[in-house]
Amino acid sequence: WKGEFFPGIPKIKYEGPSSKNPLAYKWYNADEEILGKKMKDWLRFSVAFWHTFRGTGGDPFGAPTKYWPWEDGTNSISMAKRRMSANFEFMEKLGVDRWCFHDRDIAPDGKTLAESNANLDEVVAFAKELQEGTGIRPLWGTAQLFMHPRYMHGAATSSEVGVYAYAAAQVKKAIEVTHYLGGENFVFWGGREGYQTLLNTDMKRELDHMARFFQAAVEYKKKIGFNGTLLIEPKPQEPTKHQYDWDAATSLSFLQKYGLAGEFKLNIECNHATLSGHSCHHELETARINGALGNIDANTGDPQIGWDTDQFLTDIGEATLVMLSVVRNGGIAPGGFNFDAKLRRESTDVEDIFLAHISGMDTMARGLRNVAKLMEDGSLSELIRKRYASFDTEFGAEIEAGKVDFETLEKKAMEWGEPAVASGKQELAEMIFRSAL
Amino acid sequence: WKGEFFPGIPKIKYEGPSSKNPLAYKWYNADEEILGKKMKDWLRFSVAFWHTFRGTGGDPFGAPTKYWPWEDGTNSISMAKRRMSANFEFMEKLGVDRWCFHDRDIAPDGKTLAESNANLDEVVAFAKELQEGTGIRPLWGTAQLFMHPRYMHGAATSSEVGVYAYAAAQVKKAIEVTHYLGGENFVFWGGREGYQTLLNTDMKRELDHMARFFQAAVEYKKKIGFNGTLLIEPKPQEPTKHQYDWDAATSLSFLQKYGLAGEFKLNIECNHATLSGHSCHHELETARINGALGNIDANTGDPQIGWDTDQFLTDIGEATLVMLSVVRNGGIAPGGFNFDAKLRRESTDVEDIFLAHISGMDTMARGLRNVAKLMEDGSLSELIRKRYASFDTEFGAEIEAGKVDFETLEKKAMEWGEPAVASGKQELAEMIFRSAL
Amino acid sequence: WKGEFFPGIPKIKYEGPSSKNPLAYKWYNADEEILGKKMKDWLRFSVAFWHTFRGTGGDPFGAPTKYWPWEDGTNSISMAKRRMSANFEFMEKLGVDRWCFHDRDIAPDGKTLAESNANLDEVVAFAKELQEGTGIRPLWGTAQLFMHPRYMHGAATSSEVGVYAYAAAQVKKAIEVTHYLGGENFVFWGGREGYQTLLNTDMKRELDHMARFFQAAVEYKKKIGFNGTLLIEPKPQEPTKHQYDWDAATSLSFLQKYGLAGEFKLNIECNHATLSGHSCHHELETARINGALGNIDANTGDPQIGWDTDQFLTDIGEATLVMLSVVRNGGIAPGGFNFDAKLRRESTDVEDIFLAHISGMDTMARGLRNVAKLMEDGSLSELIRKRYASFDTEFGAEIEAGKVDFETLEKKAMEWGEPAVASGKQELAEMIFRSAL
Amino acid sequence: WKGEFFPGIPKIKYEGPSSKNPLAYKWYNADEEILGKKMKDWLRFSVAFWHTFRGTGGDPFGAPTKYWPWEDGTNSISMAKRRMSANFEFMEKLGVDRWCFHDRDIAPDGKTLAESNANLDEVVAFAKELQEGTGIRPLWGTAQLFMHPRYMHGAATSSEVGVYAYAAAQVKKAIEVTHYLGGENFVFWGGREGYQTLLNTDMKRELDHMARFFQAAVEYKKKIGFNGTLLIEPKPQEPTKHQYDWDAATSLSFLQKYGLAGEFKLNIECNHATLSGHSCHHELETARINGALGNIDANTGDPQIGWDTDQFLTDIGEATLVMLSVVRNGGIAPGGFNFDAKLRRESTDVEDIFLAHISGMDTMARGLRNVAKLMEDGSLSELIRKRYASFDTEFGAEIEAGKVDFETLEKKAMEWGEPAVASGKQELAEMIFRSAL
Repeated sequence: WKGEFFPGIPKIKYEGPSSKNPLAYKWYNADEEILGKKMKDWLRFSVAFWHTFRGTGGDPFGAPTKYWPWEDGTNSISMAKRRMSANFEFMEKLGVDRWCFHDRDIAPDGKTLAESNANLDEVVAFAKELQEGTGIRPLWGTAQLFMHPRYMHGAATSSEVGVYAYAAAQVKKAIEVTHYLGGENFVFWGGREGYQTLLNTDMKRELDHMARFFQAAVEYKKKIGFNGTLLIEPKPQEPTKHQYDWDAATSLSFLQKYGLAGEFKLNIECNHATLSGHSCHHELETARINGALGNIDANTGDPQIGWDTDQFLTDIGEATLVMLSVVRNGGIAPGGFNFDAKLRRESTDVEDIFLAHISGMDTMARGLRNVAKLMEDGSLSELIRKRYASFDTEFGAEIEAGKVDFETLEKKAMEWGEPAVASGKQELAEMIFRSAL
Repeated sequence: WKGEFFPGIPKIKYEGPSSKNPLAYKWYNADEEILGKKMKDWLRFSVAFWHTFRGTGGDPFGAPTKYWPWEDGTNSISMAKRRMSANFEFMEKLGVDRWCFHDRDIAPDGKTLAESNANLDEVVAFAKELQEGTGIRPLWGTAQLFMHPRYMHGAATSSEVGVYAYAAAQVKKAIEVTHYLGGENFVFWGGREGYQTLLNTDMKRELDHMARFFQAAVEYKKKIGFNGTLLIEPKPQEPTKHQYDWDAATSLSFLQKYGLAGEFKLNIECNHATLSGHSCHHELETARINGALGNIDANTGDPQIGWDTDQFLTDIGEATLVMLSVVRNGGIAPGGFNFDAKLRRESTDVEDIFLAHISGMDTMARGLRNVAKLMEDGSLSELIRKRYASFDTEFGAEIEAGKVDFETLEKKAMEWGEPAVASGKQELAEMIFRSAL
Repeated sequence: WKGEFFPGIPKIKYEGPSSKNPLAYKWYNADEEILGKKMKDWLRFSVAFWHTFRGTGGDPFGAPTKYWPWEDGTNSISMAKRRMSANFEFMEKLGVDRWCFHDRDIAPDGKTLAESNANLDEVVAFAKELQEGTGIRPLWGTAQLFMHPRYMHGAATSSEVGVYAYAAAQVKKAIEVTHYLGGENFVFWGGREGYQTLLNTDMKRELDHMARFFQAAVEYKKKIGFNGTLLIEPKPQEPTKHQYDWDAATSLSFLQKYGLAGEFKLNIECNHATLSGHSCHHELETARINGALGNIDANTGDPQIGWDTDQFLTDIGEATLVMLSVVRNGGIAPGGFNFDAKLRRESTDVEDIFLAHISGMDTMARGLRNVAKLMEDGSLSELIRKRYASFDTEFGAEIEAGKVDFETLEKKAMEWGEPAVASGKQELAEMIFRSAL
Repeated sequence: WKGEFFPGIPKIKYEGPSSKNPLAYKWYNADEEILGKKMKDWLRFSVAFWHTFRGTGGDPFGAPTKYWPWEDGTNSISMAKRRMSANFEFMEKLGVDRWCFHDRDIAPDGKTLAESNANLDEVVAFAKELQEGTGIRPLWGTAQLFMHPRYMHGAATSSEVGVYAYAAAQVKKAIEVTHYLGGENFVFWGGREGYQTLLNTDMKRELDHMARFFQAAVEYKKKIGFNGTLLIEPKPQEPTKHQYDWDAATSLSFLQKYGLAGEFKLNIECNHATLSGHSCHHELETARINGALGNIDANTGDPQIGWDTDQFLTDIGEATLVMLSVVRNGGIAPGGFNFDAKLRRESTDVEDIFLAHISGMDTMARGLRNVAKLMEDGSLSELIRKRYASFDTEFGAEIEAGKVDFETLEKKAMEWGEPAVASGKQELAEMIFRSAL
């Protein structure tokens, strides 16, 4: 392969909201300062290697539709390297300096574990070279523990001890290469950790195994000096009928039970959030108030569809809510925004890959700008402050300090009579919020 | 009111599966022994006072449809006592000796808290008299913290400190009367604990308040010597857009975070389970393996409907799965099966109340009988045992003991090569299961 | 009752997007011309009497929360008239000149049908007086055939012939008073027309009855010279488990089967659309391309909630899609936008009623402005035109004319070889669309 | 390939409910007479070639898991023939004499349409030989218009005229071979007929094209003397975001609009039914009362999962409801029950294919036996008869004949006063129903 992968596509520049150029940013201006930080430091965008370079357009009822010019139809190491080069050209043109990968996306599976590891080493060394002289680094790495049939009953929760061992070996290696490439986080997405039916499942035993596995991962990470954050990515179902990391609260419950709460944060994916019955904002806030907001998989689903559609998020209101959590969290570094999103199956032009990312980046940037407007206006936070003002009293403070028992409360209730209850002002809050969009 | 409330209805008897008599049990035979216990001791049925005696048939688009002959159209204390008498006649005819109530179901709300408490005392004293000489006792009591407009923003999580105090006073009193009546459990269902929109909500502060409230409840319970179990009843939404006790895992996460895990168990409701995206069996098993299966609200929803329909459970397969969890748990005493279920709005004959309960009781009884068949057959548990056999080895035991690190696992994985993975045998498991129905 | 109902609230004016005044329009400028029509002529807003003046804040788990100062706690005729006066002051201040009502919202039910009719006549005569000298008229009237227990099994589809007759009498009267008040449409929402369980239902017979009922309504409308449009309002479920008018396509299928297609149009409600598994835009387009887009109930639901939340629509993207259908339809007169939406239960300030409507009106107005931008830009419609260009050929035209048989098509397919298939450009379409927001 | 495909598996026999043999029927006794017909004539089972012989266990996150011993890893014609032989051995051992196929399942796609047709001819000729001397025939054939990337925008509704022609050629051929093999029906499942986004779609034009396509299919069928029934298979979504044949009512509406109603019946799939928000029983009844119940794809979904899981139906209550519709319809010949169901991905034993089918067949058979019990008992149909008795009067008959206008109805309503409304007896109906299980 000679020359550029994306010959007609220039480096994408910021041209402002009035631009009609599809290949330009209208809202994302990397070095512009918003709320005290550069946009790129709030947003820390990352390209998902699997969707962008391994997505084929195949679905359960359809064959692949994407035939990128640089693909030669093989799953060889040379093809893996060529794809990696395309990835770097893509990031450079887009102006994004983070990427995310599964071990098996970037390098072909071998006939044995040793061979797979050797393949991975070769491609990783090549990626390392490409990284040199650039600021590009992995946002995170992860091990693909769901594609191979050996993982059909789970990886850490497989009923077969040999699979548990194999998964451990794969995670060990994936942490190593993430560390080697300067990755800042490592993600666990347990696509097969869960059950298809409780009729054949010992749920307690499987969860115990998962805890042992995570404990060993923590120990190994420390042993090799990898300081990146370990992240669990909740998802309710698909591919497994019921996954153990259903949502943020379920994942936190698991971590608490097994004494792992301090060692992990969460990678919240918007589409996973809505599939679990929550808004994305809910999941982000649940993670945030538990000190566990580690990373965001920036995508969206379809409100009428019951599976993961992994679309690029283009809803401006939604993006503003996401950024509200991020700003309240003071940013999410060393985490970032990984575009775990894919082109629609019918989008088959090379250009479409750029359009999709530009759209996704602009939407998040617009969300950030809207949050700045909300913060400057101040009336939304003032509305919340007032709502809880009755607890900002001496008695309120005592309650919050855990010093007030039921007898005292009953006495107060008798003394006070029927409490006055103010309007929740939801319509006003929504009006203020929408005015910032 | 003179004489019987249910004049044409005899004491309901067991007549066996071939009976065509709608007013007879075909499967529930209270004193018959199954799996080492009497059916009534496995099942510990309870009548839900609110649905059975306060349900009106009203819905968001429709006026009440039930005009029971004993109702006089008032919400007076004398009417409250008359209803309580009807409740006891109903239980006696049905052969059920437990009941559940909210404070405000059984006695009218007064103009002040003191008046409400006095009303409650009068009705409770009357109920105590009715209990005398019978084995009938409350399975549990609870405080109704969702109906009155003062609770529109929550009770323990209200933004108004006066409401927090009022709720505490109400719970204090409800625990006292439950204790006085010999109740075995006390339930918290936080219908209004949650949010309508995050735009006007400080979720962290509200959850902190809820934890303080529960802590005070634990202290008060101990202070007055009430040994009943405290139970949280998870529900995802409705009436509140998003409730804090979303499901079993979320509730456990909350209890763990605030150091309350040992003090509470869960009251799992099947319809709430399915609304949260899980099967009822999943929620029961989640509670069970965390030592938190305290009680079951035996009802069901409609798989195509997105709100709580509170129907009597008549699905035999579902009932068998529920009983499987109960039998694995060794029973759920001091908890039981509360029929948190209501007649359809269009069912307006007094007789229908009996038919609904008989159907619900027979279904659970049939479930228990099916579990006995499964246990005797043994092939389902054997299928599970075999599935995990590779962990019943020395190396498996070491993993389970937390002694095996990633390096050792990698060595094993290299040594073993590609692991063999057996069929999950789901279709066989389902065949065995269905054969027992 | 003396003086103003809304004393602190001025006439709501347009102040433009930069205004921070919650009691002003930022986007709705009634007389401004957009795409060749005044905004008020595109939008034809209507106040829903039931939500705005009869909504209590009650829900299945909670008592009413709204205590408007003009309410005296009775359901008397004098109270009915006072409410009607409040309605007219509200519309005047808001600058809206259409309203919608059910017969039983505006006047109290009597002990007999004759008495109910007399009550209705009295209140309607009063409304007629209030209308005089204003441009205010009903957008539509309708009969409330779901609240009273007599309708628990349905109205036109009730199993009881007496209920069928009663419903007919009620619809007859409601058409008469709508006609008398100068209403432009008449709506049928069959909240109870459907089934709770198929086990006790003869679906075919019930649908036949419904068709007979509608036929009689058509005849009566013509007989009395009412030229308004008859509208069916699809809804999938709630209150009835399964309603017969599930969605637009189902309603059209019913109308076609019984030869009623030319006599009815559809009233599409956005929240009903999403509950039936479709987007609101889908339902609008389905109605539009079948020549049946008659009216819009402008509201929205919650994507994570499975029942009708009837919220004011504040999503700008959604509003733009709605207006896209309306503009393509050349407007929807004599239909309009009825705010079938209610305050949240916790919104208890009189001011909140205004805020909610202003928000709803501004959102639709913003949607209209966005459509104008899309039309002026033209690139979205150009994208669609190009996509189907291969049918804008001679052969395409022959296919569309129904002149091409399978043999000819096979010959062409053989001749042409593998067809070229272009990218669907969904991401580009979304980028163009979002740029207009 | 020499010898048997399923060497350890005997011909499956009926052994009755007490049998513990997984490889035996407990409820399906082909020649036993139930309700006046042999079980095999009510049930008319069919094996779905695609799931049973082409299902790989792959899913969107996972590689294939099934490695049947007879597969050689190629998609050659010789492999196609070997699979077809396996299919016939399978049917023979199972005792099923119908099968269903897509053109591209049974024979490999060629490089050109001509080559694909030739491949198909060769395999079809081979299947014809295998059929000889047996009673085995296709229940139906169909054309696979969703897998190949050319169909990514639809087949009959593609934006490209070349694809429309290609699809027509493919359907033409598929009808021919179905006819040649003695197939009794031909199915259209429009997996790609619909839209991904309305932003790039001309829905009216696409629907018009689909109508033209169906019209041409009807003409061609008649021309070649194929007397089989044409069937549309409704499905709401997946793979396409929104399919045009959403559910039974939507499909009927389309057929009515375009004058095709008499030419098509429906193939109702239970999993598709529930995904569209209806029960399977609802869809069957909707088809039945419109004279359009043509065939049943006997499978089931998971009530908590939002995509097509295509599981074998093992729920006895559900199966009984399905058979209730079938018996009311007097059977569904020339349609039947096609097992459009697949093994779970983790079920990898050859034996599992048999277990799954046996389970599915036994469940339907048990449903049929239960319907016989319900019919013999008669109390359920009596309950329905009584419910509508008020229409079995002279006045009721006049209403049903369309002779009663609103004035007459109003007069009656005034005369009769408040109508009496009886209990809906849902709990009794459910009790009767469950007693038959």
